[in-house]
Formats: sequence, structure tokens, C-alpha cells
Amino acid sequence: MIYLTRRERFSAAHRMFRQDWTDEKNQKIFGKCSNPNWHGHNYELFVTVKGELSEETGFVINIDTLKKIILEKVIQKIDHKNINLEVDFMKGKIATSENLAIAVWNQLKPFIEKEGAQLHCIKIEETENNSIEYYG
Amino acid sequence: MIYLTRRERFSAAHRMFRQDWTDEKNQKIFGKCSNPNWHGHNYELFVTVKGELSEETGFVINIDTLKKIILEKVIQKIDHKNINLEVDFMKGKIATSENLAIAVWNQLKPFIEKEGAQLHCIKIEETENNSIEYYG
Amino acid sequence: MIYLTRRERFSAAHRMFRQDWTDEKNQKIFGKCSNPNWHGHNYELFVTVKGELSEETGFVINIDTLKKIILEKVIQKIDHKNINLEVDFMKGKIATSENLAIAVWNQLKPFIEKEGAQLHCIKIEETENNSIEYYG
Amino acid sequence: MIYLTRRERFSAAHRMFRQDWTDEKNQKIFGKCSNPNWHGHNYELFVTVKGELSEETGFVINIDTLKKIILEKVIQKIDHKNINLEVDFMKGKIATSENLAIAVWNQLKPFIEKEGAQLHCIKIEETENNSIEYYG
Amino acid sequence: MIYLTRRERFSAAHRMFRQDWTDEKNQKIFGKCSNPNWHGHNYELFVTVKGELSEETGFVINIDTLKKIILEKVIQKIDHKNINLEVDFMKGKIATSENLAIAVWNQLKPFIEKEGAQLHCIKIEETENNSIEYYG
Amino acid sequence: MIYLTRRERFSAAHRMFRQDWTDEKNQKIFGKCSNPNWHGHNYELFVTVKGELSEETGFVINIDTLKKIILEKVIQKIDHKNINLEVDFMKGKIATSENLAIAVWNQLKPFIEKEGAQLHCIKIEETENNSIEYYG
Repeated sequence: MIYLTRRERFSAAHRMFRQDWTDEKNQKIFGKCSNPNWHGHNYELFVTVKGELSEETGFVINIDTLKKIILEKVIQKIDHKNINLEVDFMKGKIATSENLAIAVWNQLKPFIEKEGAQLHCIKIEETENNSIEYYG
Repeated sequence: MIYLTRRERFSAAHRMFRQDWTDEKNQKIFGKCSNPNWHGHNYELFVTVKGELSEETGFVINIDTLKKIILEKVIQKIDHKNINLEVDFMKGKIATSENLAIAVWNQLKPFIEKEGAQLHCIKIEETENNSIEYYG
Repeated sequence: MIYLTRRERFSAAHRMFRQDWTDEKNQKIFGKCSNPNWHGHNYELFVTVKGELSEETGFVINIDTLKKIILEKVIQKIDHKNINLEVDFMKGKIATSENLAIAVWNQLKPFIEKEGAQLHCIKIEETENNSIEYYG
Repeated sequence: MIYLTRRERFSAAHRMFRQDWTDEKNQKIFGKCSNPNWHGHNYELFVTVKGELSEETGFVINIDTLKKIILEKVIQKIDHKNINLEVDFMKGKIATSENLAIAVWNQLKPFIEKEGAQLHCIKIEETENNSIEYYG
Repeated sequence: MIYLTRRERFSAAHRMFRQDWTDEKNQKIFGKCSNPNWHGHNYELFVTVKGELSEETGFVINIDTLKKIILEKVIQKIDHKNINLEVDFMKGKIATSENLAIAVWNQLKPFIEKEGAQLHCIKIEETENNSIEYYG
Repeated sequence: MIYLTRRERFSAAHRMFRQDWTDEKNQKIFGKCSNPNWHGHNYELFVTVKGELSEETGFVINIDTLKKIILEKVIQKIDHKNINLEVDFMKGKIATSENLAIAVWNQLKPFIEKEGAQLHCIKIEETENNSIEYYG
């Protein structure tokens, strides 16, 4: 079993809040991350896939193929966008990095399996100090 | 002459656009950075001051003092905010990193001079690939 | 299960040595790290907690709460201190990063569990080339 | 159980290709990485060993010993070399990072075990965006 | 005057040597960098341009335009290539980072000036420890 | 004119204080950096030299020679040492990074000039947030 990790980046706006809460309650629970006028981040996304090594190519997965999947299924939908308003796979979810990691997992899993590999981990770094990992 | 650089970080939403242009023209000139629903970044701000060394302390400027000035005059006003809508020193300006660097310079200069040092450079890194420097 | 990692930093002095060994033996086993006049590092501490996602907040743990626990139980006790002489949770232990990781684990575990999450990993980077991980 | 990771770096040339394929087929499968005139990378190698803590020293393994093993068995053989032509432990293998990680694992395992520790993971970062992990 | 820096990356093979010297003399002067079978690096290229701020756009130069120039005039010619054998703008030059910085300067200067900005600095990082700057 | 920068690292203990001040006054001016039991850092030292390009070698200075000078004149004297107590070129100086940069400049200048290059800048990064530059 070999693990391959690809990093991609995206810059997006978001806000953490619940529509069924007042701004005051959102402020109390989510703090400055609940700012109604949005804020944003340079997110780093690390996608780890695993699988047996192909003896023919010495690859787990062709990294160009993996890159294309990540760009098409995730980056093009979220880069330079508003996560709360514009990203279909985050619709109806609180825009935390936790929920984002799970949504990205679901977004990528079938397409990576179609390539004969398994999705192992989605890691999202929101800032240099905070990151989330999800293993399914 | 000694140069001292302090790094601080902020996360903010922004949009590049001109109100006197159509969304189409904004899109043409500013590309994806003109998204009407905003996007955002983890900005890194590097403030460089210069001055003679104090023989008494071995300092150019007390770094705690410099940090307090940057936090009070810049970071608290921009971190987790919308640069276009909420930052007083960016009011009426296109929210490019170029304009941001100049505005931060003007915001900090008098307070650093009050401490007996000179402001030398404002550097703003918008992403790991793009940065702006302004020397006054 | 979701994993969240928070990075905090501290700068401290230390020395690796055993009081029941001569300076020569300490020098032989611990090398330059045994310098009787101390040396120091910028340590990076990565605390990983895991848990079920709260449906109400989209969080594993409120990161502000986690940050406060790490600052109060670890950083305030060790930052700008001498690990051998001044840090209560390292008393009587050889000041290796291995022992430090275990001690930080014990220091944080009950307070993270009180918040309904589990402590998963303590990672300490002593330099850009050397790091230690402890999983309990 | 404690995990210790040591980073070492090497710069090397390589080319991904199969001698039993035409240049055209190599180009189709391996893309620009198949350039017959070679290209190269600054590789980062992370070697993670695990073991019980020695009560006498507070170490899993003496990091100077680990460093010497990595330098002698891997770095001196591959740094500033051509991976396809000059590295004995890569002879006859396609020069992917996947194959490199496995070969480095085999190269290091017996010598780390001789020191009373276990080899846990070989991680190779080929670029800031692509990395491989192998756990045996 | 505002300074804007764009980072791009390329991976390439090279060898430092003079054809009019023996392998032994090349080895003596250039050390392991003279390996006849090549070695390689992940180079980081930082291109800094300067100019007056456009009041209309808040830009020194449109960064998409700058990026296209760098990709077309430099990166596409050198990425995944052999600097000694395949890069037209390095033909007949010793493949040091010093010569590379000057050649990249000459390669980019006219196209940046055509955009109304000035080329200020070419910085090339060969490894995390070694870099070259050229200001014309 | 070409500029070449070499990075070296050292880990050291220090304390900022004046013997002619009370611990209380040292604490007031230098804050936690005045801790009588010392603290420490992983310092990064960037040495920039400048000069004309040698047409024979394509070098400003042979980087192996530069590295040896830095190691012999600075790193071996300060790495894993106490800056206040053990470093001859810091004797009698307050152990700020400002004073350290000037002292390193004086330590290196004659030996770099002997190699036919000029010393341009000493940069010392004490933490990821604080750095000092000195240009003579």
C-alpha cells in the first residue's frame, strides 16, 4: 500500500452562522468568524489517495488524472467564490472546515475509485495554525 | 541603520471592482477577483522599520510597541472583515493589495515616527505566489 | 470522526543531561545538546483532537476553547522559560522532545476530554529537521 | 510508543520511462516527466521511526545515529546524482517517488532495527504539491 | 512606486561544467554540482516589477498578464527540461543560478516594459539555503 | 552586480538584560525576554554577498567557500551555545538580534572580502514573526 498526497489551493469567502439563530447568538458561538459581511482565507487542500503500486507504471494513480479530478470537482467550484452562497456541495451546511472536509470527501470519492485507487484522507488547512483531517 | 521586520496576519474578504463599471467590465479587467459575492485571503503583512540602534537597549524599536501599533491601527480593523465594506482606511479605494499596502503605510507612519523610528517598507503577501511592497 | 489540529509556538531554553552522570558522560551521550550553559529552540506544538461532528455547530471542538486550554496549560508555563528549571510538568525529567510530548499530552488530556473531544496526537517540532509524535 | 521524524534533503535528476516502450508511449503515460534529457528535483525525505522510550536517555533513538544511517545508506548515494543511472538501490526500477519510497524503506529498515527501533514511515516530497508515503 | 512580486516554480536538470576543462578540473571547481550524469532542482523564480499605480485599476501591472509573460518566456522553456542542453536562453552559458538570473532578466525585460512597468529584480532560489538576486 | 544569499541555522539560548539594571527594570524594558533562567531560539541567518560575476566560473563567490566561512566564523561559535555567556563576538553586548546582526557582520566582512566579494546584508530571523537586517 502506497499513499500519494496532492496539494491544491483555493481562496474563498465564508461566514459561519445559522440562519435560525440571531446575529447575537451567532456572534457568541462563532465569534469573529460570524461577521455578516464575510471574511475569507487561502485554503490549502491535501488529498491523500492509497492503493497498490502498478508494476507497469510505478504509480499508485497518475497524478495528472488526480489533479484534474480535484480541479474539476472541487477547485473550479470553490476558488474565488463565496462558500456559503455559491458552492453547490456546501449548500445548507455551516461553512466550517469540518463540514468542508466531509463535503470534499464525498465530492472526490467516486471519481478516485473509478481510477482504481482509494480515497484515504482530506486535509484542509484554513490558516497556518488550524487544520482539519477527515478519513471517511 | 538597522532594519526590523514584524509579521502579522489577517484573514479578510474582498472584491476588486469599480462601481462605475458594469459587472461585465469588472469581470473583464479583474477576472475571478471581481466575483460579486466576494472571496478572501489569509494576508501576511510585513512591516519594516529602520533607525539607529539605541545603545541603552540594543533595540531599533521595542518590538512589543511596534506590535501594539500594528494590531491597533491595522489588524483589529481588517481581520475577519470585508475590506470593501468595513475597513475605514480602504473606503473609496479599489481593494487591490497595491492600494492596501499604501493605505497601511499611511495608517502606521505617524505612530512609528512617534516612537523615534522610520517606516521603511510595507509588504503584503496575498497568496504564496503574489506580494506587493511599498516604500513610501 | 473528524480530526482538528491547532498549532502553537513557544521559545525556550533547555539542556539534555542526567545529574547522576558526569559532564563528560552527558557530553558523550547527548553531544552539544548537553551544553551546561543551555541552548534553546523555537518549538512548534501541534495538538490534534478528534471527535464526532456537532450537528448544531459543525465543530469537533470550539477552536477558541482549545486554544485557551493549550495557552493556559502549556504555553504560559513554558514560553520564554528554561524547560529544565522552570516548567513544573517537566520536573525530574530529561528535557528531550520525547519526554516533552508525553508531558504535554498528560497536561492537556483531561481538559480536552472535559470539552467532549479526545486527544489524538501531540507533535513537537524542535527544528525544521526533527520532530516527535505521541499518540498516548 | 513514540514516533520520531528526521528530515533530510537531496537534489537529483531523474526521468520516468520504460525502456521497453517507445519515447512516444513514455511521453503519453509519463508526460513531461519522461523528457529524455532528464529533469530534477529538490527532494525532501522524512524518515519516521517508532519505539519505546529509553528511561535512561529519554530517547527513542539517538538522532545523531539515525542521521548517520540516513546519510550513509541513502543521501550519499543519491544527492547530486542521476536516480536512473547512478543509484544502486534504484537499479531496474522506474524512477517514480513511489518506487523511491519503497527502495529507501528497504535501504534503511535493517539498520534502524539494529538500533532497537522500528521503521514506521518513509515520506518523500518531490515538490511542494506532491508527496508519497510508505509504511512497509 | 509600487513593487509587485510573482513567484513561479520549475523543476529542471543541470550540471555546472566547462567543456574546455577536464572532468577532474570541473570536479575540483564545481564539486558535486559537476556530476556528468546531471542532477536537478525545484527552482523558485521570483519576478519583481515596479511602476506607478494605475488610478483606474489600482494595479501596477495586471498580474494575469505578468503570469502569462513569465510562463511563455521562461517556464515553458525550462520546466522539466535540461538547462544545459535544451534551454535556448542558456545556450553557451555555465548553468549557474547567477547566469540563469541574468538570462531570465533579459528574457523578461522587454515584455514587461511593453506593459508599462519596469523589471526590478529576478530572484532564483535553487534550494532552501541558496538564492541569487539580479537587479539589472 | 549579482547578489548571493546563503542561509544557515543555529539554536542558542539568550537573555536580554543589563547588569547595571535591577531584574525589575530589565523585566519592565525587556519583558519575558529578560527571564534570568534564559530562553532560546532557532535562529535563521541569511548572509548576502554581492560582486561581479566571474566569467570563468559563472559565480559571484564559490558557495562552498562562503559556507565554510560562515560555519567557522559564526555557526561553530554560537550553535547550541549561550549567546550571553559563551560567544566571544557578543561579549559585553546586549543579546538582541540587532546587536547580533552587527556582530555577525563584523565577524564575516574581512573573510568575504578576502574572497573578492562584498558583504551586502546580514539578516537574522529570531522567530517566524521577527527579523533584523543590517547593511553595514
